[in-house]
Amino acid sequence: MIKGLDHIAVAVSDLDAAVKLWTETFQVAVSHREIIQDQLVEVAMIKLGSLHVELISPISSDSPVAKFIEKRGEALHHFAVASESTQDELDRMKQSGIPLIDEMARAGAKGSRIGFIHPQALGGVLVEIVDHQKE
Amino acid sequence: MIKGLDHIAVAVSDLDAAVKLWTETFQVAVSHREIIQDQLVEVAMIKLGSLHVELISPISSDSPVAKFIEKRGEALHHFAVASESTQDELDRMKQSGIPLIDEMARAGAKGSRIGFIHPQALGGVLVEIVDHQKE
Repeated sequence: MIKGLDHIAVAVSDLDAAVKLWTETFQVAVSHREIIQDQLVEVAMIKLGSLHVELISPISSDSPVAKFIEKRGEALHHFAVASESTQDELDRMKQSGIPLIDEMARAGAKGSRIGFIHPQALGGVLVEIVDHQKE
Repeated sequence: MIKGLDHIAVAVSDLDAAVKLWTETFQVAVSHREIIQDQLVEVAMIKLGSLHVELISPISSDSPVAKFIEKRGEALHHFAVASESTQDELDRMKQSGIPLIDEMARAGAKGSRIGFIHPQALGGVLVEIVDHQKE
């Protein structure tokens, strides 16, 4: 079951410049920053009340985010919905013939499990499913 | 003060086709549908748990959403944050020199007040501020 939003991700080419824009506009601090080697991105997290905005910046031209920016420019990249179980959602979608990037949930940040729906399923929009349940 | 997310909006060229994709993928129904003449769009609202996703489709080629789709394709269009007072946020931003589309809050759906930050403020990302306070 989908519970609601987990986070919104924005693709940016210059992370320091983007952090400056977002923190100055909303008068907030960065709550977390890390390099995710797996996806070849550096991430900075901004909290707007209960909303988590993830600024993601490629650290290599091979990063999917670099390719996204090349094609679409700096823009909203994806949003993630929080679920009871990422694997259950993926299983249900697979059975319904929904195109998926991930058929098996994989490890996300802080012990979460994540899976991406193929953008083809949603007219070009990339949506991630996340759960923070412990096994 | 920003409290959290209000909604995410997705620009689509064919509203019926988009409704079919989103409702089939997430096994949910459309909760609301209306034409907003003011913005030359038709809107369908999908609820994913507590998350409101607004599918917005131009009803005229003069619509800003038509121009967005022409330039960027069907994609995430903007997100809206819920605030205590839209006007207070706009006032604070104006004083800080943040570029705004709306310096004065205007009427949104269901008695809300809305205002848009200029995308220039956030590296090309369009963010709306909403409050649902009664005067």
